[in-house]
Amino acid sequence: MEHYLDNSATTVASLAAAKKAFEMMTENYANPSSLHYRGMLAEQELEKARKAVAKQLFAQTDEIIFTSGGTEANNLALFGTAYAKKRRGTKIVTTSVEHSSIMESCKRLEQEGFEIAYVSPRQDGVVHTEDILAEVNDNTVLVSVMYVNNETGAIMPVAEIFDAVKGKKSDIICHTDAVQAFGKIAVNPKKLGADLVSVSAHKVHSPKGCGAIYIKKGARLVPRTYGGEQEKKIRPGTEPLPLIAAFGVACNEFAIEKNYEKVAELCEYAKNQLTKIDGVVINSPQNALPYVLNFSAGKVRSETMLHFLEEYEIYVSSGSACAKGAPSYVLSSMGYGSYRADSALRVSFSKLNTKEDVDALCTTLAQGLKVLVHR
Amino acid sequence: MEHYLDNSATTVASLAAAKKAFEMMTENYANPSSLHYRGMLAEQELEKARKAVAKQLFAQTDEIIFTSGGTEANNLALFGTAYAKKRRGTKIVTTSVEHSSIMESCKRLEQEGFEIAYVSPRQDGVVHTEDILAEVNDNTVLVSVMYVNNETGAIMPVAEIFDAVKGKKSDIICHTDAVQAFGKIAVNPKKLGADLVSVSAHKVHSPKGCGAIYIKKGARLVPRTYGGEQEKKIRPGTEPLPLIAAFGVACNEFAIEKNYEKVAELCEYAKNQLTKIDGVVINSPQNALPYVLNFSAGKVRSETMLHFLEEYEIYVSSGSACAKGAPSYVLSSMGYGSYRADSALRVSFSKLNTKEDVDALCTTLAQGLKVLVHR
Repeated sequence: MEHYLDNSATTVASLAAAKKAFEMMTENYANPSSLHYRGMLAEQELEKARKAVAKQLFAQTDEIIFTSGGTEANNLALFGTAYAKKRRGTKIVTTSVEHSSIMESCKRLEQEGFEIAYVSPRQDGVVHTEDILAEVNDNTVLVSVMYVNNETGAIMPVAEIFDAVKGKKSDIICHTDAVQAFGKIAVNPKKLGADLVSVSAHKVHSPKGCGAIYIKKGARLVPRTYGGEQEKKIRPGTEPLPLIAAFGVACNEFAIEKNYEKVAELCEYAKNQLTKIDGVVINSPQNALPYVLNFSAGKVRSETMLHFLEEYEIYVSSGSACAKGAPSYVLSSMGYGSYRADSALRVSFSKLNTKEDVDALCTTLAQGLKVLVHR
Repeated sequence: MEHYLDNSATTVASLAAAKKAFEMMTENYANPSSLHYRGMLAEQELEKARKAVAKQLFAQTDEIIFTSGGTEANNLALFGTAYAKKRRGTKIVTTSVEHSSIMESCKRLEQEGFEIAYVSPRQDGVVHTEDILAEVNDNTVLVSVMYVNNETGAIMPVAEIFDAVKGKKSDIICHTDAVQAFGKIAVNPKKLGADLVSVSAHKVHSPKGCGAIYIKKGARLVPRTYGGEQEKKIRPGTEPLPLIAAFGVACNEFAIEKNYEKVAELCEYAKNQLTKIDGVVINSPQNALPYVLNFSAGKVRSETMLHFLEEYEIYVSSGSACAKGAPSYVLSSMGYGSYRADSALRVSFSKLNTKEDVDALCTTLAQGLKVLVHR
């Protein structure tokens, strides 16, 4: 029996979402930009999906722009805002624990002359409002803080941060990368005070290759892509309609509160069982989103344990999938030494996981700690 | 019975391609960047698809980078080269009949200080080598000429152009947008003398949301997207694996020569039948790719006729899908007056079309010309 515990890397598509994608590939396959009846049928599906995504973001449909995924949404938010605002200021404030698509975009913007402040979380794994605020000055045009960290599940006080930021300088654009939060807890841009929100489809049981960005009415972005009339010219190119329609279906399947409770219980169970094992320490903050559980296991290197577990069809991660095994800058940002970071594993749940998955993990992990330490 | 004659806008996915996508969504669904066994299974599919695309482009696998489609590939080619080369020169030579993703990227680059020369085709619909060459000077770093025009099917003498360009200045990067050529005629970058080639999946019976760019070994592009390690960091972001794997399957289904002959015969038949109708004139050049047939029908506006035809389940286009009904800059570039451009229709074939489709088109078009003229 397989135990897939890598849901923050990606999730299996729901059957309904996959079937919708299949239907859009083989039946309702026209180009939504085509003027004829078949094009219109395709366009209707596009707008139906937009409505479903908008609903989950408590937004208007015309505030949703589809992208190829979270990475593109994050790039669009950062470059789009930086370029749109550069006459007003050139400073961007972000954190040291963002996803690589934010970090690398910031590094590029730095090369182009922008000033970037990377605020570290404190030892609790959380970025504090006053630390962000200390970096906000007259030159600041954009603040980008993730909602939930992808490696630890740490929930950042985004609403509090954005409120304080706008209190200090009201015209700053506030962006949150909500890829790991969307579908798990409510992501309400208005309540968060966010002008821009990035989400991804494949983290919520919809296929890879699709995401969206919420753009508050009035917020202006310089596009990153140029071409046809699609997506209000903010993101041109023939829409990946099979994926978008599937994303819409997946959004309609959300049962956030119900799933949250189930996963929270499972995570609590996992924490209890894991900490019974000698040498296991939890790295995720106390208040973390229960969908992500980061821990270190003895002195066994993450990759070694990961491959040991996979022999038993238990699939976990050593940090984020996008980093492909590089040491975690998130854990070192939290002040953990390299030994603890080097043995860190990330378990990430979905609504499909059960106690059997956790039991299998714990049994095998304990076994691994015995066998591997003795090697 | 339905007659889908808008295959240059998009095609239906083949059953095998759609089934592959479905399998990747529901079974082999892991993130190809995940280090565990399931991630490896996904990565194997990624590389299998890359091999299939590379084969169709007579290329090495490491010369293929997947994108979200033709638009992104074209943007990457243009911005990526312009930024990589800007210290050497700032002039780009292209044509006046490129796809909007080239045209709009060029306009943006113009705003950023690059000099763009838009070379018009002559009355034969084809861009001539000497006209391109006349614009190439010491400041030129990039020449981008489409292989097949999306509205008329005109085949541009890309090999001859690139040969002449490199003869004049050997370090110029040559790019061709081969979206409408790929899968229909051989696209061999080496034979064409192309450093960069853009292709799209959804024009060749694979789902929308995927494309690729061929990057000749040694050609350097500044990325447009920043993030993880995917696609050699030239195009980061979790890969749309269901679409990529489907694209690979579609590529393996190519039967270029066989399909070409069938479509060429069909196009010849269509030309004969259409020109028998009073008031119909062919706009596509004599030597055009037979997959695209552009003609003008009497004094009836394109959109009016398009909607008349759709009543009979005959689906054609008025220009390119991406232009969404805007007047054709391609036909006016060819010197056609607005009357002829305003009544232009584009019929575009796939291997799935038959004489019955053409007969239905001709019968209904003739009927439309009678009814609509009298209105």
